[in-house]
Amino acid sequence: MKINLKELAELLGGDLQGEGLAEMTGAAPASSAGPSEVCYLEDLSKKKLLDGTKAGCALLPRAAKEAELPYGGNRIYVDNPKWAFTILLRKIQLEKRPKAPWGIHPTAVVHTTARLGKYCHVGPFSVIEKDAVIGDFSFIGAQCYIGERVQVGANCHFYPQVMVREACVIGNQVILHPGVVIGADGFAYIFVNGRHEKIPQLGNVVIEDEVEIGAGTTVDRAMLEQTRIGAGTKIDNLVQIGHNVHIGRSCIIVAQAGIAGSSVLEDGVVLGGQVGLADHVRLGKGSMVAAQSGIMDDLPPGQVVFGSPARPRLEAMKILAIMGRLPEMYAFFKKMKAKFGDGQDK
Amino acid sequence: MKINLKELAELLGGDLQGEGLAEMTGAAPASSAGPSEVCYLEDLSKKKLLDGTKAGCALLPRAAKEAELPYGGNRIYVDNPKWAFTILLRKIQLEKRPKAPWGIHPTAVVHTTARLGKYCHVGPFSVIEKDAVIGDFSFIGAQCYIGERVQVGANCHFYPQVMVREACVIGNQVILHPGVVIGADGFAYIFVNGRHEKIPQLGNVVIEDEVEIGAGTTVDRAMLEQTRIGAGTKIDNLVQIGHNVHIGRSCIIVAQAGIAGSSVLEDGVVLGGQVGLADHVRLGKGSMVAAQSGIMDDLPPGQVVFGSPARPRLEAMKILAIMGRLPEMYAFFKKMKAKFGDGQDK
Amino acid sequence: MKINLKELAELLGGDLQGEGLAEMTGAAPASSAGPSEVCYLEDLSKKKLLDGTKAGCALLPRAAKEAELPYGGNRIYVDNPKWAFTILLRKIQLEKRPKAPWGIHPTAVVHTTARLGKYCHVGPFSVIEKDAVIGDFSFIGAQCYIGERVQVGANCHFYPQVMVREACVIGNQVILHPGVVIGADGFAYIFVNGRHEKIPQLGNVVIEDEVEIGAGTTVDRAMLEQTRIGAGTKIDNLVQIGHNVHIGRSCIIVAQAGIAGSSVLEDGVVLGGQVGLADHVRLGKGSMVAAQSGIMDDLPPGQVVFGSPARPRLEAMKILAIMGRLPEMYAFFKKMKAKFGDGQDK
Repeated sequence: MKINLKELAELLGGDLQGEGLAEMTGAAPASSAGPSEVCYLEDLSKKKLLDGTKAGCALLPRAAKEAELPYGGNRIYVDNPKWAFTILLRKIQLEKRPKAPWGIHPTAVVHTTARLGKYCHVGPFSVIEKDAVIGDFSFIGAQCYIGERVQVGANCHFYPQVMVREACVIGNQVILHPGVVIGADGFAYIFVNGRHEKIPQLGNVVIEDEVEIGAGTTVDRAMLEQTRIGAGTKIDNLVQIGHNVHIGRSCIIVAQAGIAGSSVLEDGVVLGGQVGLADHVRLGKGSMVAAQSGIMDDLPPGQVVFGSPARPRLEAMKILAIMGRLPEMYAFFKKMKAKFGDGQDK
Repeated sequence: MKINLKELAELLGGDLQGEGLAEMTGAAPASSAGPSEVCYLEDLSKKKLLDGTKAGCALLPRAAKEAELPYGGNRIYVDNPKWAFTILLRKIQLEKRPKAPWGIHPTAVVHTTARLGKYCHVGPFSVIEKDAVIGDFSFIGAQCYIGERVQVGANCHFYPQVMVREACVIGNQVILHPGVVIGADGFAYIFVNGRHEKIPQLGNVVIEDEVEIGAGTTVDRAMLEQTRIGAGTKIDNLVQIGHNVHIGRSCIIVAQAGIAGSSVLEDGVVLGGQVGLADHVRLGKGSMVAAQSGIMDDLPPGQVVFGSPARPRLEAMKILAIMGRLPEMYAFFKKMKAKFGDGQDK
Repeated sequence: MKINLKELAELLGGDLQGEGLAEMTGAAPASSAGPSEVCYLEDLSKKKLLDGTKAGCALLPRAAKEAELPYGGNRIYVDNPKWAFTILLRKIQLEKRPKAPWGIHPTAVVHTTARLGKYCHVGPFSVIEKDAVIGDFSFIGAQCYIGERVQVGANCHFYPQVMVREACVIGNQVILHPGVVIGADGFAYIFVNGRHEKIPQLGNVVIEDEVEIGAGTTVDRAMLEQTRIGAGTKIDNLVQIGHNVHIGRSCIIVAQAGIAGSSVLEDGVVLGGQVGLADHVRLGKGSMVAAQSGIMDDLPPGQVVFGSPARPRLEAMKILAIMGRLPEMYAFFKKMKAKFGDGQDK
């Protein structure tokens, strides 16, 4: 990539202060950026990060116009420096990432009844089963498995070694990372005559537009209806999503979280890493669960909780702080008990 | 699927009250079932679920004969409605699931010394190594890897992208979901001369009949002898089972639980989601561990525990409740301390 | 394998007491070893383990020369019996493990620009993309995916179904187990105009020499620079390592641990199973985190912690013990409160 600062300021809708003809070839954190690389400062409270940078240009918040900064180089003032930097990264990515080919690799096994859209790609050793549908411009990497009657929308990107079982439905612009398993059986048994008898899982998984799912994450198919992941939700690696779970729009689910069967996340819920949800709980719109917390009951909208079991954040923090005083409290308790007996002398 | 209510009542061993010739074509929860679909009511305490249902038939407990229900449609009284419903689902599944083909896909790489039973299937791009044995009617999906000297019993179903390393032994009617890894090396090193030296893992994994293992779960091979999973045990997704672990019969292990090396689960143990077990602990028959708990010591048979570290359930619940009172206790503690000094004035 | 005790004592640098010509054919734990098998005793405190053993030879610490043992058979005294046993296991392994073939399997898809070293192997259905480099004697198992410009050193062993995305760099003697995903995108979004916008992840992953990574573990690529795993570090199954994480040399990370973005582990850090680390924390050299703990702040070198959130080990243990006394403390608190009111009567 090559872009001069005048062009870059235009691309980012920013105000350039510096040499318009200076050419930039990359992006980097301030600490390691070189004279042809662009860095950014998210907000002025972190201005120390610019100290000593050799960056060729810094993307700065507009408020920086009046601020004193430990940096005298070229600068572009923008409304949202992190977003501006993201736009630059996307431009770099277009050239840096491997070019996605299109067409069906000769080694792929594609059933004659499968329907593939325009300019879509099926990589080596991938299997597309009977009656599957792949939308235009979608990319199915190497060694993927797309089951019978699966529907994949347009502009999806499935990395190698993704697995989608029969009858699941995937929207447009969905990204699935390696090792993702969509539509395996929900975990359901009934104990009869001394044995765990398997309950068939006849539903499917529906993934809406612009969902991204991280490496190794598993999303189980519903028993009868749908496990559903709402548009724009982003899921990290090694997450487990049980059968019949409904996840709303624009949720964030961090790595290794687990959601048991039939639970509901309303729109905009955030689950930290390693969070566990019991089955049949409902998390209200915009509620947030801190890492490693355990949720056994519904949460109202906007609630922020932590702990296992989770409590409202302030309460949990207070209790945690007091736990640090328990040794002192216990020592006092023993002395008071010696003094007052069991307290029953009243 | 099509079945009339007379036939259905016969299949389920139930008593029909309604139109014997009414034809059913599917199954659904009461809330969404239509006039040609069957729903069920697990027990009378949940009878509200039938309110407003349009189901063509409800499977009801026999006790419902005398009860008042918010439902006037066809009904079949059975001993165990959930089990009856499961039997119906199994009938539906026979027609709804993709037909399992048999035979070896022409792209599969099967070693000339491997022995395949009657009517078994090996999917596209699967690899069956030297001296492996696959039993009659077993299904090995696409892109699986079956290592040297692996033995797989009859009537197994391995979904695509399953991996079984050399010398592991798998019984009959075992189901392995996508991404399962059986027989990877146990995690074992000895620190010598400033380096972690790898200890070879020369044992294997033995999985008995009717075990089911969820997507992405890993079961490590023993150092010298066997990691063993007992008959009828069911394991959910993304579970980690360390080397030399012995799991008894009919255990239930929920998603993301982890069992460290050499631990023993006796028959019928239940581990909740995200539970962690230390190494070399023994969980007595029928003991139960609540989700997210951590186990560092043996449990007696039938013990029910939770917490990290886990305590007996009632004790853990009592402590949790009191933790909610800690702020109040702490405030009082401070006042008493001000009043009595360090309590040493006695 | 066949080795007589004279040869074995020589191999292990030990002192034989017994029949030099007795032939051994295997190794086993004392409890199950037979007359042609070797067992070992780690230290004298465990001498009970030898009780009743039928082992043909025991590897013993030199201190055992003067000790009384419940074992009268052949023995070899060595400096470090577990290490001696490991050396024996390695000898056995050479014959027991499947022979690693070399050469490119005819079904593998290897790009014409990929460069493969001497005696390296690419298994069936593996894909090696453009400009990838595989070092001498490295083994790439079946169904692996090696992305564009990936560099793999010499003497590596990748088990089947490993996935390494473009531009990642892997050192010498690295072992990757099945289902490992190296270089998937870090989890990074910016919330703009009501949507989570993806931030491109343009860095890579660098794995140094002699690292071993367990089945199903995921290591995300950096946003701009490198996610790095230091030489000799060993990682267990189903671990999640976020983008930009730096892990030092000779660390141990047990199964299902998770490390959020940009955190740093200095050399020799040990993380127990299911541990969670927040982002941007630094764990000092040799610090140790007990299983299931949660780390939100930096740790000084050598610190040993547990709990979620973690506290120094002794403090955490004291608090845990006192928590068991909370019911008693609470009962006393209620009585004292009845006696003294709110304590405000002073």
